[in-house]
Parts: sequence; structure tokens; C-alpha cells
Amino acid sequence: MTRRVLVTGATGFIGQYTLLPLRELGFNIHVAGRTPPDDPDVTFHTANLFDQADAVRVARDAEASHLLHLAWNTEPGRFWNSPLNLDWVGASLSTVKAFAEAGGARVVLAGTCAEYRWGADTPLDENRSELAPETLYGVSKDALRRIVSSYADLASLSFAWGRIFFLYGPGEKPGRLVSDAIRTLGGKQPFATTDGNQRRDFMHVEDVARAFALLLASEVQGSVNIASGKAVPVRSILEAIARETGGQEMLRLGERPRPANDPATIEAAVDRLRYEVGFTPRHTMSDGLAQSVKWWKDRGSDLPN
Amino acid sequence: MTRRVLVTGATGFIGQYTLLPLRELGFNIHVAGRTPPDDPDVTFHTANLFDQADAVRVARDAEASHLLHLAWNTEPGRFWNSPLNLDWVGASLSTVKAFAEAGGARVVLAGTCAEYRWGADTPLDENRSELAPETLYGVSKDALRRIVSSYADLASLSFAWGRIFFLYGPGEKPGRLVSDAIRTLGGKQPFATTDGNQRRDFMHVEDVARAFALLLASEVQGSVNIASGKAVPVRSILEAIARETGGQEMLRLGERPRPANDPATIEAAVDRLRYEVGFTPRHTMSDGLAQSVKWWKDRGSDLPN
Repeated sequence: MTRRVLVTGATGFIGQYTLLPLRELGFNIHVAGRTPPDDPDVTFHTANLFDQADAVRVARDAEASHLLHLAWNTEPGRFWNSPLNLDWVGASLSTVKAFAEAGGARVVLAGTCAEYRWGADTPLDENRSELAPETLYGVSKDALRRIVSSYADLASLSFAWGRIFFLYGPGEKPGRLVSDAIRTLGGKQPFATTDGNQRRDFMHVEDVARAFALLLASEVQGSVNIASGKAVPVRSILEAIARETGGQEMLRLGERPRPANDPATIEAAVDRLRYEVGFTPRHTMSDGLAQSVKWWKDRGSDLPN
Repeated sequence: MTRRVLVTGATGFIGQYTLLPLRELGFNIHVAGRTPPDDPDVTFHTANLFDQADAVRVARDAEASHLLHLAWNTEPGRFWNSPLNLDWVGASLSTVKAFAEAGGARVVLAGTCAEYRWGADTPLDENRSELAPETLYGVSKDALRRIVSSYADLASLSFAWGRIFFLYGPGEKPGRLVSDAIRTLGGKQPFATTDGNQRRDFMHVEDVARAFALLLASEVQGSVNIASGKAVPVRSILEAIARETGGQEMLRLGERPRPANDPATIEAAVDRLRYEVGFTPRHTMSDGLAQSVKWWKDRGSDLPN
């Protein structure tokens, strides 16, 4: 039987990379949103997800067996505490409910490492680590997960929740760490930053997207960290970018203080992703960063704007 | 300065009784909803709260300093696990956000004792008791509270959350314990029920409504139990109704099993309500039940339908 997926956020940073692996996994792909993805093989449904009636119409038209709901506000810097998080909780609930009521069977939504209490000295674990979100984004995602989980039980919906950690790669918006470092160092401008000793679990966006596709295709339920499982010092990423761009002289580590309470390490336990979903990353950090630098160079965006 | 409140759910079981105490507390009253309340002194705004644009329009038109958001689906029996809980989370978030963005200062929303883990042998306490909702209604309310609390911090909104326990009184819908007992026993029909040994914290709906009005008028923030603080055996309520209706012969205690895991006691700690908000109930159980029986008699509804 052909499986049909309805994808939201398909033109977003992660979403754009989900279409290829979804197709490879045998999914027939439908997309809902404001703008169609640059892909002739998807069926596109124009939709304003903030409008309940649109969510219902698209769910009925798409008749999908699977829903991959990635759409959210992720404006760099602002999304952590944007009031739009409230609207996205509502839109996500409408989308999931409309999908279930149209006969859908399985939903996968995007969660975040910001649901966890940061600062633990062991990897963050889906079953054992404490949840204590400190931003409106983290609180909203955590609350959404609680509701969808309860609803899924009642509606006999198969439900998984992929917790995204840190990511980078071609197509990243300006205003985020890796994209800003590439553009600034590539433009031979000074890049003033922290000491970079904080360790973060970064994964290439193509791997993140493929992990979501595999999670969707699996029968795994509940929360699953979408991450590499290996945190690295942020300075090692910046130094690699500096080498790749030839901007070594411009990297100013230690010129900015780290925020108070900035956790030493944010690292995911990835047993569920590796052994239950069967995912392993394909990109190494060095090849992924080289690819990202090349992407920016190809666009001629060698100066910050 | 005159305070102006925007009330949602003003024609609901609790909402209808909030208008008088709100007026006594000096509020100028605006109401948003589908149907106007039977009260010539309120300003009514027709609104579909599921429509974000309506929420924004009403918030701008009302220009209220205070929001008392009581609207929710409470269809007896069904509301515990109705998918409509998802829609009400979205509508509540839209309503609160629109109110804040229109310049509102203080919001009070209705929570529920179903946010707590039931089964504790001490009164349920806002600060110390564990939260572990087991129904979609409880999960949705708990999740909504988390989001609004985080949003209120960022938006400099004063926020309180009134956790409703058990209530009864004139105007209660059929399909709930007290309303069904009154109608069945009043109609001299057999009322088959449990042993009635479970103890529940019941409060008269007029007292619940007045507590919400006082909470709104106060500056108390966070979660506040809206309850009597004294759980009574359900059988004592049913026996009082039987006496009041003359249906003593028809009360069949012990004919139905109590649900598995039915908690022995659900009782609120009411220190916050009593000492911070300054509320004490006015109705005794016996006068409240007599008034409720009279209300049904006056309507001629002496038989179940």
C-alpha cells in the first residue's frame, strides 16, 4: 500500500530536506502551506494553517495516512520568546485534529531540546531527563506535546515527537551561529564571540531531515531525540569555519561573555534514534561545514548584511 | 479609575453568576461570545472565539483592563475527553494574546482540579501537590496554564488561574450528579448510584463565580484553588437531595460500582483563596441544595429527560 504523507513547513530549513528521503522511503508527498516547495513531484495545497477551516479542508483533500508537521515560527533570535509561539500551538492542534478526523493514522511533530532542563552532566534522555523549559518556545512545544500525546491515545493515532537539538547546513538563515560565522569570517570581518568552550550537540540539517523521515516511516512512538549524540565545543566548529573560509585571523574567541547560566554541555542520548528508528548520521562535521561554506560562497554572500 | 472586564463564557454555568459580583466590585462589564447574557447592563460583542480575527477585533473594541476567560466546552460526561478541548486551547491562547496586545493588564482563566494527581490523602495544594492530569480536559488545561504563565511573564501581564473543583446549583445542566439526582428523585424515579463514600469538595456555583470575581479584582497571581476546602461524602449530598425532594425511597446507594481508581477524597487546600484573595463561601450545602431543588421544581422539570 502506498503511504501518503502531508508535510507542513516543507519550505523551511529542515522541511526542504525531508522531501527526498520521504520519497526514497516510498511516500507519496502532499504539502500544505503558503508557498509551494521547489519540487514538481509533490501535490501542493495552499493553506493558512492559522485558519481552522483551511486545516480541515487540506486534511480532507490530502487524505494522507501520515502527517509530518514541522511548520513553526523560527525567526532567528526572536523565536525563543515570540508571541507567535501561541499561534503555532493553536495551528498545530488544529492541524493534528483535522488530520486525525480525516482518517490519518500517524503523526510526527517537531519538538525541541529546550523542553529539557539544561545543565545536566549526562546526555539528555527522553525517558529519564527532567523537563523544565525556560523559554516560551520550549514551554509551548512541551505543552503541545502533552496535549497531542493525550489526544493521540484517545484518537488511536500513532504519535512520535522528534526533539531537535542544534543544527546547521546549507540554507540556514542569517542570524544563527554557523550562518553568521560563515558570512562574517568569509567576508574577512571580525567575528567576536564567546570563549566557545560550551559543548553543543550539532547535526547537519540533511541528517536531521532524514531522521524525521525515518521516524515517520517507523512505528516508534513518544519522544525521540533528533541529534548526533556527540556534543562538541562550539569553538571547534568556529575554528573549522575559520579554516574553511580563510578567516582565521578574524575569529575573536572570548570577546563576548557567555550568558549567565549558559550550560556547559547540551548533548542528546540517541539510543532511541539509533536502535529503535535505525538512524545514523551521514555527514561528518568537517564535510558538513565545508559544504555550508561552499553554499554561501556560491550565493556570493561573503559579507554580512 | 473604572476597571473594565471582558468576560467570555458569560452565559455558562459559572459565567452567568459572575456578572453580579463583578458589578458589585466596580467593574464595567463587556461580554464576548455567541449569545448575549440576559443582562441589559453589559456591552455585548458577538464573537466566534475560534476565529483569531474575531478575538483581535473584540479585544480592540472592548479596550478592557481585565479579562475573565471562562469559555470552554463542558458538555456533561463528554468534555473529559472531547477533541473540542484542542480547539479551546487554541481559542484561549488567541483570546489572551489579543487581549494583551490590545493593552490589557490582568487575565484570569479557569483551570481544574483535574490538573492534579488524584488520590493524595492531604488536601490538593497549589504549590506542593503533584500535577498529573489523566484526561484530555485536564491535560489541555494544564498545558494551557503553562503557556499562558510563560507568555504573561514576557508580556508583563498579571495572571491568575482559578482551579475549579466540584460545583452544583441552579442552572446546572442535566447529566451531572446533582442535577440528575434532583430530577430523578424529584420525579420519584429510582436513582441507582455508587456507595457514595467518596468525598468530594463541592461548592455552590454562586460562590464559585464570586470567588472568580474576587480573584480577578485582586492582584493574586498563579494558581488558586476555587473550592470550599471541605470535602463531603457524596452520599451525604444525595441523602440531602432525597430528603429535599421527598425521594428517600428512590435513592439506591451502592447499586453501581465506583470506577477503578476512583479516589477516596478530592479536597482543595484553600489558604490562597481564603487569605490572599479574601474569599469565604456564603452558601451552606443544605441551603444550596434546597435552592437547587426549588429551581428545578419551578421549571416543572420533575422527570428526567
